[in-house]
Amino acid sequence: MIRSAERFREKEGIDVRIRHEVEEIDAAGARVRVRQLESGSVSWESYDKLLIATGALPICPELPGSDAVRICGINTLQSGLELRRLLDAEAAKTGVVVGGGYIGLEMAEALVRRGIEVTLVDRSPQLMGTLDEEMGELVSRAMRDFGVTVHLKESLTGFETREGKVVGVVTDKRSLPVDIVILGLGVRPNTALAAAAGIPLGVKGAIRVNERMQTGVAGIWAAGDCAESFHLVSRRPFYIALGTVANRQGRVAGINLGGGYATFPGVTGTAVTKVGQVEVARTGLQEKELRALGIEWVSAVIKSRTRAGYFPGSGEITVKVLAEKGSGRLLGGQIVGMEGSAKRIDTLATALHADFTVAEMINLDLGYAPPFSPVWDPVVIAAREAEKLL
Amino acid sequence: MIRSAERFREKEGIDVRIRHEVEEIDAAGARVRVRQLESGSVSWESYDKLLIATGALPICPELPGSDAVRICGINTLQSGLELRRLLDAEAAKTGVVVGGGYIGLEMAEALVRRGIEVTLVDRSPQLMGTLDEEMGELVSRAMRDFGVTVHLKESLTGFETREGKVVGVVTDKRSLPVDIVILGLGVRPNTALAAAAGIPLGVKGAIRVNERMQTGVAGIWAAGDCAESFHLVSRRPFYIALGTVANRQGRVAGINLGGGYATFPGVTGTAVTKVGQVEVARTGLQEKELRALGIEWVSAVIKSRTRAGYFPGSGEITVKVLAEKGSGRLLGGQIVGMEGSAKRIDTLATALHADFTVAEMINLDLGYAPPFSPVWDPVVIAAREAEKLL
Repeated sequence: MIRSAERFREKEGIDVRIRHEVEEIDAAGARVRVRQLESGSVSWESYDKLLIATGALPICPELPGSDAVRICGINTLQSGLELRRLLDAEAAKTGVVVGGGYIGLEMAEALVRRGIEVTLVDRSPQLMGTLDEEMGELVSRAMRDFGVTVHLKESLTGFETREGKVVGVVTDKRSLPVDIVILGLGVRPNTALAAAAGIPLGVKGAIRVNERMQTGVAGIWAAGDCAESFHLVSRRPFYIALGTVANRQGRVAGINLGGGYATFPGVTGTAVTKVGQVEVARTGLQEKELRALGIEWVSAVIKSRTRAGYFPGSGEITVKVLAEKGSGRLLGGQIVGMEGSAKRIDTLATALHADFTVAEMINLDLGYAPPFSPVWDPVVIAAREAEKLL
Repeated sequence: MIRSAERFREKEGIDVRIRHEVEEIDAAGARVRVRQLESGSVSWESYDKLLIATGALPICPELPGSDAVRICGINTLQSGLELRRLLDAEAAKTGVVVGGGYIGLEMAEALVRRGIEVTLVDRSPQLMGTLDEEMGELVSRAMRDFGVTVHLKESLTGFETREGKVVGVVTDKRSLPVDIVILGLGVRPNTALAAAAGIPLGVKGAIRVNERMQTGVAGIWAAGDCAESFHLVSRRPFYIALGTVANRQGRVAGINLGGGYATFPGVTGTAVTKVGQVEVARTGLQEKELRALGIEWVSAVIKSRTRAGYFPGSGEITVKVLAEKGSGRLLGGQIVGMEGSAKRIDTLATALHADFTVAEMINLDLGYAPPFSPVWDPVVIAAREAEKLL
């Protein structure tokens, strides 16, 4: 069932109601069963080519009290609007955010900015699990500096409710009284419809696709958060639910569906976010992925400045670079720092696409002027340090 | 003679006087003639390896009145200190900057910020000659918006002086009364000493070096603004006097002089600057260089936003991308835009190092979050548009 799209029904005065829903794909017959939502009538529609773009679904734990009002997941425009209405209507004073990924961090910041006292709970030992430990630690510090209470290594066990509304979050360590709870526990590909049609699934249940975004069933294509990607550094199939990737996959699928020819080579796993003034970015493989892949690595963590040290507005930036032991092949990078830090990840991402070694990165001709960078860009300083450890 | 270093003699209370000067290199005898500046005594010092790092000299036209006081070139710490003292001591009301390159633009901005009425004069039809015409036009507009009067296609012919001080700038079109004149007419490699020693020179009179920064004479090395570079896109020797290049060359020369092994592959010609709030960046080859090289190209100029359109602080950014006709090889890029624009040049510079085509750039996994970028980074949008024109 494709229900997630339904949540876009209403966009502040604009009628974005979903009127039809695909209930079944008959791949052998090249047709889909469509339900007219208002009347309930059902019909079969044939297709020449079919694109599955069913996106992802938020992970929602089945826990005592989890169906209470004022427990919000944020994954659609509609869910965002509902949360804002709730915050506008009720004077929430305390909020708990469960999950320390991008959504969790951004929602925690948004609540703090509305004057709400925020506690962030994550079962893992660090925030931003896509960063290595020492870099994640910098993010925890930034969250705490921003006024968020952070509880790590703490698992959600349930919710306390009163008259159908949430009043408390229960973890394995404590009970937190709250007015509102936001869940940022990640997403999973929305592929039940594809699976029921016999379309082969891959990593994490995402639809398996080739470089042209074709599924394993003739005439059927997939793109976006429901589809697999390929990781250019691990050289393995990979699942990542990000808007940029979905956009690029959608472009490739569209060109191919339209009779053209385009390929999507894959991703390096780039992502950026912001906590207060602190910018966070990552690309490539992190240590736990390298360990699982059996790749040996060296890494360097350096501190530098976002601009020339003497230039007004210069701030601290920490860059970590990982390189393959022996070969020096760049494997990944992570950045935490002040204004001007995050988009420096693009240099590392482009270098990953180019399969550069850290030695090759040392002589990159990057832009320098005092308002923008020290003479040696922090990303290059980190590559230089990693190169010394090979 | 190495005299430029002498100008560093005094750094606001810190004694940085140059006490010795190399007057001659005797390459056959592996020795240099050194003058003790205070006593005037001369001696020969022998060397095993010699590094020439004599930098560049500002271009100063010999024109009527050009030796007047209050005509300042800015190329050393000392010249900057002298200018600041002059501005502090005398209440300059009007200034003329001659030359519309990096130094000219930055000095014009600095004078405006001090409340001085500034006129910028350049003999070429645009500011920032390292940009293509339509991008240079955006820079002229930014300068005018910042309050600078810009006169293009206007040649300096001399200065009017009174009691040895400059009081006017004369061009082929007008006479401008002034209190202070700043020359930003570029630099040339300071290589008279090297030339006299029989060391082969190359492009624009810079010292010819190999990838390890060795000159054509055994035991003698060169690095920095006095040495040649290699352009990775044109694949020809190239001269560029920038601190970043000097730093990278210096590192390579130092490693090699110390008995190690390092190479400097070359540059892509990256440079960034800022005019008020407007950021300017360029890398690779521009149209006039491509024309001279006989390379055919396509180009795309796009307008986008520095952040997601709806995000506070989102500003306009214009990106130009040039690609080789047929092959689609990226040849260069230019950026003019608001905060967050300039360092995007690093993605293009890294792609040039990787010898990417614009088609390969379309799927670069660059960082996206609303505070940092639209979903498609402007640099990628430009590459995508250029790819359509191949």
